[in-house]
Amino acid sequence: MAHKVSPLAPERFPDLPPIAGVRLGTIAAGVRYTTGRVDVMLAELAPGTTVAGVFTRSKTASAPVDWCRKALPGGQARAVIVNAGNANAFTGQAGFKAVQVTAEGVAQRLGCRPDEVYVASTGVIGEPLPAERITAVLDKLSQDLKPDHWAEAARAIMTTDTYPKGVTATARIGGTTVTINGFIKGSGMIAPDMATMLGFVFTDAALPADVMQALLTRGSDRSFNCITVDSDTSTSDTVLLFATGQAGNPTVEKASDPRLADFRRVLDGVLMELAHLVVKDGEGAEKLVAIRVGGAATAKAARRIGLAIANSPLVKTAIAAGDANWGRIVMAVGKSGEKADRDRLSISMGGVAVARNGVRVEGFDEGPVAAHMAGRAIDIDVDVGVGRASATVWTCDLTHAYIDINGSYRS
Amino acid sequence: MAHKVSPLAPERFPDLPPIAGVRLGTIAAGVRYTTGRVDVMLAELAPGTTVAGVFTRSKTASAPVDWCRKALPGGQARAVIVNAGNANAFTGQAGFKAVQVTAEGVAQRLGCRPDEVYVASTGVIGEPLPAERITAVLDKLSQDLKPDHWAEAARAIMTTDTYPKGVTATARIGGTTVTINGFIKGSGMIAPDMATMLGFVFTDAALPADVMQALLTRGSDRSFNCITVDSDTSTSDTVLLFATGQAGNPTVEKASDPRLADFRRVLDGVLMELAHLVVKDGEGAEKLVAIRVGGAATAKAARRIGLAIANSPLVKTAIAAGDANWGRIVMAVGKSGEKADRDRLSISMGGVAVARNGVRVEGFDEGPVAAHMAGRAIDIDVDVGVGRASATVWTCDLTHAYIDINGSYRS
Repeated sequence: MAHKVSPLAPERFPDLPPIAGVRLGTIAAGVRYTTGRVDVMLAELAPGTTVAGVFTRSKTASAPVDWCRKALPGGQARAVIVNAGNANAFTGQAGFKAVQVTAEGVAQRLGCRPDEVYVASTGVIGEPLPAERITAVLDKLSQDLKPDHWAEAARAIMTTDTYPKGVTATARIGGTTVTINGFIKGSGMIAPDMATMLGFVFTDAALPADVMQALLTRGSDRSFNCITVDSDTSTSDTVLLFATGQAGNPTVEKASDPRLADFRRVLDGVLMELAHLVVKDGEGAEKLVAIRVGGAATAKAARRIGLAIANSPLVKTAIAAGDANWGRIVMAVGKSGEKADRDRLSISMGGVAVARNGVRVEGFDEGPVAAHMAGRAIDIDVDVGVGRASATVWTCDLTHAYIDINGSYRS
Repeated sequence: MAHKVSPLAPERFPDLPPIAGVRLGTIAAGVRYTTGRVDVMLAELAPGTTVAGVFTRSKTASAPVDWCRKALPGGQARAVIVNAGNANAFTGQAGFKAVQVTAEGVAQRLGCRPDEVYVASTGVIGEPLPAERITAVLDKLSQDLKPDHWAEAARAIMTTDTYPKGVTATARIGGTTVTINGFIKGSGMIAPDMATMLGFVFTDAALPADVMQALLTRGSDRSFNCITVDSDTSTSDTVLLFATGQAGNPTVEKASDPRLADFRRVLDGVLMELAHLVVKDGEGAEKLVAIRVGGAATAKAARRIGLAIANSPLVKTAIAAGDANWGRIVMAVGKSGEKADRDRLSISMGGVAVARNGVRVEGFDEGPVAAHMAGRAIDIDVDVGVGRASATVWTCDLTHAYIDINGSYRS
């Protein structure tokens, strides 16, 4: 199960500073792993923390996703607890009970209501979650919470991930500097039209829950909803955004408040970077592929065309082989079902035009394109020639390692 | 480029008998292959032959598909010519001209109109088709046509196929015995919601073109449109059905005529078998997977859920590894977007119940399921618990060989 670290991994986990009102702890509960691997993460949130969330659109969503969706309208959070190794999905009434006893156990230790405890699980689908292994370690876990355990928290929630993923940034709200920290896990079962895998973003800003929800939904749409590893949407995708309010920034009531312009921009950047960290750790990934689709009828159509290209196994295997096989891009545009003018279609790879107005560029020299395809970062630009809308999606290549990983790990 | 023959291949190509009014020839034209490989196939059809066709729904359809679509309302066919190695797709005005000179060349030799000549091409997308290499061999090709060259014809149109694919059957129409022969190519870029790869079906029955079209559309919907290898819809998918009318059966005017009951049943069987031959030669296939979805709201929903399972790389890699990973089937049902009741979902593999009403079967013994998963033919049964509609789809597993084939062959 030990797979080599993705060649696209960042050099190191960044230094995430403390966020006032957030304390983190991790522990080995033996949920599934028998190796003593740390597999449970608890973040305690100060009273007054607001919360926003986006979740999988799967019709077979996990029990923790059901729980969080139900809790979200309350807008208040005091903790989030996450386990790796078991997704607690397709586990029926027992799955609901497992979430409930976990949340109740955390609530009891931290002195809050169970519906202020958010729960997420990732791992194998369909196996009962032994919640008693989690509740058994809650005393120890809740007594050893630290403001600086970000790297440990990011590592505790990994499954087939080959590196822990974190991002930090600061923004200004009306003269006050606020901090945003986020960490995320995800490598396979990553697909469009959803939230993403498990991602947790924390800020000390003071923000009403409905404002946060607007910002998170908008930011996720251009980041998490524009990445794909393997077209397979998880049962468990969850991104939660928590604001402790301890930075002391002036209160804003609307997501469109001009004083949130900088925060919005920085948050979008954090969400985008978290999304990219997931694609860079796509199972078996050797290359990061950015696909920009322009000339589309609508932004939604542009994204769908981009995802049709990004999800095509023929495109992905060609990229893995360093083959500038743009004919397969034509195929993928065609299969997307979205409006496109075959005879006005243009394609560039690595900034070099390969096809224009429905035919290969005259005197096309494949040399520079082949050199680009040999690199780690692949840029594909497609103009479908029917409108002015555009979108960018990100994916990785499809290599032998994807098959090795998914033939050996029951996820 | 030589890949091992699929372990799912039939033992041999069947003996296809002559069909009165059909003569076949093949030749090496060097369209793309420099090895002297036979790459062009011509079938001459007797005057009076009627034709029906189904084609790719790709928005970037090939020039030959455009040509056939335009010719089809005429309902008459005198020849079909097919080349392998170049799809003549995304080739602009030059692509249209290439089809035109080819059809004109054939029409001149056989004494018919160009719009009675059907054309199909398969191979690389986006490269100009050197039609002059085809027209240069038309004299020789048209002078050496034989009624029994079925195996040669099936072999001439192969690309990444590892074996030639043919089917024969007889049916009764009002006391007359008629014969149906079909051959097909296809291995990768095989996906739902379309006709299929290149398939050609011939009969000596006398049938009006509109009756044939009704039979072919209906039969394709349950066969070609229910298979997938890799979710990638081709630019070139074409199935043509030709009837020479020389069997002397009584004339029927409607597809619903009861005298066509046997013919319809046999034709459906031929189309289904041709479709299965394609899946069995799916690129890198080691296992044939039949997925039956029941309890769905509509047949369309059932097919979509089946295809979501069949196209999931996580399901396909698990099957390749012989892993009874039914949690990934739950995931795929959830991502399909179709109506399904998570808490009434039931799954069987190889006839053994693994999950019922949203949870794993109590005391589940994985032994018999694991034994089934080790075999060549995998049966998956899913009941989504919301209605009474059902559908069956077929796919293959996803193995290392798929990546090898598609990293080395520019298709």
